[in-house]
Amino acid sequence: MKINGKPYRTIWAIGQDKIGIIDQTRLPHRFETRELASMQDAAHAIKAMIVRGAPLIGATAAYGIALAMRADASDEALDRAHDVLAETRPTAINLRWALKRMRDVLRNRPRAERAALAWAEAARIADEDVAVCRAIGEHGLKILRAASAKKNGGTLNVLTHCNAGWLACVDWGTALAPIYMAHDAGIPIHVWVDETRPRNQGASLTAFELGSHGVKHTIVADNAGGHYMQVGKVDLCIVGTDRVTATGDVANKIGTYLKALAAQDNGVPFYVALPSSTIDWTLSSGRDIPIEERSADELLKMTGRLPDGGLATVEIAAPGSPGANPGFDVTPARLVTGFITERGTCAATEEGLRSLFPTA
Amino acid sequence: MKINGKPYRTIWAIGQDKIGIIDQTRLPHRFETRELASMQDAAHAIKAMIVRGAPLIGATAAYGIALAMRADASDEALDRAHDVLAETRPTAINLRWALKRMRDVLRNRPRAERAALAWAEAARIADEDVAVCRAIGEHGLKILRAASAKKNGGTLNVLTHCNAGWLACVDWGTALAPIYMAHDAGIPIHVWVDETRPRNQGASLTAFELGSHGVKHTIVADNAGGHYMQVGKVDLCIVGTDRVTATGDVANKIGTYLKALAAQDNGVPFYVALPSSTIDWTLSSGRDIPIEERSADELLKMTGRLPDGGLATVEIAAPGSPGANPGFDVTPARLVTGFITERGTCAATEEGLRSLFPTA
Repeated sequence: MKINGKPYRTIWAIGQDKIGIIDQTRLPHRFETRELASMQDAAHAIKAMIVRGAPLIGATAAYGIALAMRADASDEALDRAHDVLAETRPTAINLRWALKRMRDVLRNRPRAERAALAWAEAARIADEDVAVCRAIGEHGLKILRAASAKKNGGTLNVLTHCNAGWLACVDWGTALAPIYMAHDAGIPIHVWVDETRPRNQGASLTAFELGSHGVKHTIVADNAGGHYMQVGKVDLCIVGTDRVTATGDVANKIGTYLKALAAQDNGVPFYVALPSSTIDWTLSSGRDIPIEERSADELLKMTGRLPDGGLATVEIAAPGSPGANPGFDVTPARLVTGFITERGTCAATEEGLRSLFPTA
Repeated sequence: MKINGKPYRTIWAIGQDKIGIIDQTRLPHRFETRELASMQDAAHAIKAMIVRGAPLIGATAAYGIALAMRADASDEALDRAHDVLAETRPTAINLRWALKRMRDVLRNRPRAERAALAWAEAARIADEDVAVCRAIGEHGLKILRAASAKKNGGTLNVLTHCNAGWLACVDWGTALAPIYMAHDAGIPIHVWVDETRPRNQGASLTAFELGSHGVKHTIVADNAGGHYMQVGKVDLCIVGTDRVTATGDVANKIGTYLKALAAQDNGVPFYVALPSSTIDWTLSSGRDIPIEERSADELLKMTGRLPDGGLATVEIAAPGSPGANPGFDVTPARLVTGFITERGTCAATEEGLRSLFPTA
């Protein structure tokens, strides 16, 4: 997608020994890119959420393996890089999927070839993610087109939570891909953007993305979505996910569950967009998905722009009061209207997922 | 309640011509008091949320009438003060209740007596609020005591949204009154404090209150409450309200509805604490409660403490992205386990409310 008219992906190779990324902790206040020169750089970028979003985490971890292989192509280095990168974020499954794929490609191959093989495989993962997101967008577009037809030319109001846009992927996005395609197809569309406390990925990243692409949107507090559904101002919801169980339970950014409850209570369709790499076929219940606990500082401090254009971080809560910060929650499959995947849409059930991915 | 060991109410008379209040827009960063010398001062204090919380808004409006009568005791001035104050906040019903009570007391009375009468009536409203909140606390304490008994000595986890503590009232609070009494009675209790975006009354006021009183608490993002209910870490919810219909629908701070949905989905009791002045006997559906739209700046900017102790306001969202900021939502009576009032507890139904207030 474009920023100030220049096309970007969220991650790109620089020669064959460095990776370029957008520093997402600086958005929307600053647009800055960074270079990652080592596996440790990649691990830090994931852990500190300089890159975030399940698909982008997977691509970054893949390049992290490639960077590790440049420095040391031994089996031990491969296993160490795999383990260090796997521990950066516990909830996202794409991370594990990408790491397993990289290790499977590199094992039993000569050390001398590993760096080049890893580099090529990481690039393939990134390219595939773009194709997968484009396919998700095309399948989701059908849903938006049908919903728009019911509005008789009125604006379609879509609510999304967190950022499942191109900044969360390599390009296009998952939940936002259908929205970009609908906008580009001339469907009148407006997005309610959940702020997404505590890290505000909605207000900072989703709003930034949509604004840059010219899509009409309004930032609202996470608290407001239920009210807008009650008064008929939300036609449907689309969110992304960090892990889906084989039975269709959905781990996504904390607060997703509350919006799914409100959607059900008001008869608003609630869709989850995902690449199939997000499906954890080994789990049969969302209760078994590990939920990341993050620093309370993310809740108790806030960074923003001062009137003079500088950035400042302020403490916003009562001094001395502790905070807790679970990063994700689990939305039970019963609250999900359907999944939008690269192979099409399906019910949020084991049968639904198996109908699209019979051999996974 | 005490701040730094000194007992305070949230509003107090200074002689017979000024009112003292705590500037709640400066909390938790600064504890500052202000003086209101005119009806306009009182109206501004309510509109700008220098005072907030349905019961305190009512008391402030009553004193606003008294200040107006000091300046001009004519019928016209009385009507004007009534109307100006009534327009400051559309959702809270205590405001209208207090203004009607003041006008009823003052109408048909000699102008020369009105200022003194108004002053005395406003003081009575404030004193009554303290007694009402104490009674709410005592009735709610029974619920907390019973819930605690089921925990076999374990800590009782209560979730609350926004601030319905003593800072929202004249003293004690509504939702927090039972919690203070439980804490004082030695019941082990811990409060999940919803941050309450966009104005953060939970993180700033509720956390400040509970911390000052020594009650264990943890600030969480509004998004987190559903997750904590899913994993069994919330035993019950208590919130306040700005208006309850005769049929038991509850207008309260935006986001309350989402927590009530999650409570129902997880079998967690959801109580609403209220003085009977909060009941709007003229309404039979929550859909008829006007919902205040506030400035998007409350969402898009944030004030906090800099490392050097100074205060700064920063813009936190994507530049140029619009925001919307509804102040309240309506929780349908079907999601409310019970009401805690000054006359006892009842079901969230018309019959329940009538059983306690048959002649209202």
